[in-house]
Amino acid sequence: MPIDVEAVRRETRGVRRVAHLNNAGSALVPRPVMETVVAHLRREEEIGGYEAAEEAADRLEKVYSSVARLVGAEPTEIALAENGSRAWAMAVYSIPFDRGARILIGRTEYVSNVIALRQLARRHDLRIVVLEDDSYGQVDVDQLQPELERGNVALVALTHVPMANGLVNPAAEVGRRCRAAGVMFVLDACQSVGQLPLDVQSLGCDVLTGTGRKFLRGPRGTAFLYVRGSVLERLEPVLLDQHSAVGSGAVSYEVRGDARRFESWEASAAGRLGLGQAVDYALALGVDAIRERVTGLAELLRAELGAVPGLTVHDRGLTRCGIVTFSVRGRDAEGIRRRLAQDRINVSVAPLVSAPFDPALRWAPEPAMVVRASVHYYNTEDEIRRLVDAIR
Amino acid sequence: MPIDVEAVRRETRGVRRVAHLNNAGSALVPRPVMETVVAHLRREEEIGGYEAAEEAADRLEKVYSSVARLVGAEPTEIALAENGSRAWAMAVYSIPFDRGARILIGRTEYVSNVIALRQLARRHDLRIVVLEDDSYGQVDVDQLQPELERGNVALVALTHVPMANGLVNPAAEVGRRCRAAGVMFVLDACQSVGQLPLDVQSLGCDVLTGTGRKFLRGPRGTAFLYVRGSVLERLEPVLLDQHSAVGSGAVSYEVRGDARRFESWEASAAGRLGLGQAVDYALALGVDAIRERVTGLAELLRAELGAVPGLTVHDRGLTRCGIVTFSVRGRDAEGIRRRLAQDRINVSVAPLVSAPFDPALRWAPEPAMVVRASVHYYNTEDEIRRLVDAIR
Repeated sequence: MPIDVEAVRRETRGVRRVAHLNNAGSALVPRPVMETVVAHLRREEEIGGYEAAEEAADRLEKVYSSVARLVGAEPTEIALAENGSRAWAMAVYSIPFDRGARILIGRTEYVSNVIALRQLARRHDLRIVVLEDDSYGQVDVDQLQPELERGNVALVALTHVPMANGLVNPAAEVGRRCRAAGVMFVLDACQSVGQLPLDVQSLGCDVLTGTGRKFLRGPRGTAFLYVRGSVLERLEPVLLDQHSAVGSGAVSYEVRGDARRFESWEASAAGRLGLGQAVDYALALGVDAIRERVTGLAELLRAELGAVPGLTVHDRGLTRCGIVTFSVRGRDAEGIRRRLAQDRINVSVAPLVSAPFDPALRWAPEPAMVVRASVHYYNTEDEIRRLVDAIR
Repeated sequence: MPIDVEAVRRETRGVRRVAHLNNAGSALVPRPVMETVVAHLRREEEIGGYEAAEEAADRLEKVYSSVARLVGAEPTEIALAENGSRAWAMAVYSIPFDRGARILIGRTEYVSNVIALRQLARRHDLRIVVLEDDSYGQVDVDQLQPELERGNVALVALTHVPMANGLVNPAAEVGRRCRAAGVMFVLDACQSVGQLPLDVQSLGCDVLTGTGRKFLRGPRGTAFLYVRGSVLERLEPVLLDQHSAVGSGAVSYEVRGDARRFESWEASAAGRLGLGQAVDYALALGVDAIRERVTGLAELLRAELGAVPGLTVHDRGLTRCGIVTFSVRGRDAEGIRRRLAQDRINVSVAPLVSAPFDPALRWAPEPAMVVRASVHYYNTEDEIRRLVDAIR
């Protein structure tokens, strides 16, 4: 069933105030998410934080099943986290790396992941191999194959939807090849979860991370981590506490068996309930219907922008998503963002290629910044026209 | 100026519903904290998450100065975190341990810290030395001295207020000896911050962690970390992202200079603002006045409980705080807690000694559980009498 745009807008308080085209930054939360968060905070205020959590224990537990359902996993394979980078780090830093092993990444790997991998490379004497883009700008699967065959690969890390060029990387194809080669595949899905259907079985990933605040429309400070059950045992968390492990014997400890080994004891219960509500909201609308609406609006935006003189749309890829990037000749991206904000149109700016290195693997000292307009299903054709008119 | 109990109760919605004596678990938030959190969430709902954060940038920045003021530090020495265990872990796991080094801890070190230290001990071949209690039940400073003189000590870790025996460890004395020996001193102040004055200079600690939800009366999912400026440079964070470091050159990275190197990019902005508000609230009341009221109420509670036949108060220590622990002959602690909850009196249960080992350093398989009643300045003499009457 297609999205009932009027209905979802009625449930989105922010659309009355802004044309929000910064959904890849942080989307507008729908009323049920907001109500869930505030109701729990009120309950904490009334009867105490732990007392409110005890009362909400079943609903807190249900968050795991909701997230599991969203990505086609088991609830025991899901951990909750404060943000996507920490979720990703908790899994990747926990991998028992052999010295000298190689890590394969795409050129658009998220900058936080790259910094983490550089630290791990130094710590464990690893080599990071950056796969080239194919002619569409996606990670080159044909280059991946010989690199996998060369062996000694500890890990393939891929960002499903890069933060700024509109494309969707061929994750399932990467996953298929990783599985055939018996190599661990870590997928950062922070920009795809909530706008595209995700299924860890067909994606073939061993680790997947998602964030609450972006296309899922959840609260800030929420995220989740999926780790395949068969991989869990091999990953002793890089940090432990009394939630992730228990003491055993005189000097030892025992790590818990499920994915919550990557969590820590304390978190915002209100935020977690809000995340669960956001997932349920997306599931109720149908993620296929969401994708259809989001990609349709993004294509409309690209087409309209393409007709503006002096404007370049920078999106690449065979499969595209709700992120649209462009620049205007002679205009600074940040200036455009500020000017649009005055008209209550929210966009963001982003480096042209989100990867922090040029082909020679050097950090670009000053990456070209572009405007990023990221649409969601609650945006309208009118809002897109408002943006394009304002740009003109 | 003493606490105006009527005034703070008017600002505490929960006191109308419950006699909340679980402040060592999670305290009742005062109205200004709740309003700050909800107002920011509403603003996110109205204009977008990042847009609301941009608008609140100065207030978000001010949270660091508030926390710094609370503990007598510089704002650049403060990091914010999701919880105290992660704050503690981010600092301690980042210490460059020499193989074979020794770690000194007290018998009441917080269980999460002990599990983390056990993991670090295995990872770096360290030896954990557990200092005995003195005759008051506090960490034995006289035993600390020869252990420090024996040398090869990487770290002294102390829990300022253990979770369950009412005492305040002589942290400043431990700090003085650590400084004299040139040994790093890590103080877990999660149960003392908000009920006792803290000053990192007089405590002599290099690392201090505090949590928002307990005696500070902040939101759940908030905490802070202090790391002494002179120590910062030696601690490369165990996990990095684009907030804590930037890329540099072809394969390297540069860690930021201040304590935010231990943070990660994304967090609940509403939660952080709420934490700052909670700190300002405590500072406005005056932490000395808070201590006076809290310790006075706790002494009253101990005296009243002491007169109940069959009841044993388990608190130890020369200096005591707002945590009161007791057991009733023939009654199970959890049963007492549930029964009191029916009368809308909130207490919690805790292991008699929070340390996870007996003197032989073995994990106690079934620690004796006791009832923990933890008072705050907004509690009344009436509530204390209600608790004691219910126990009778």
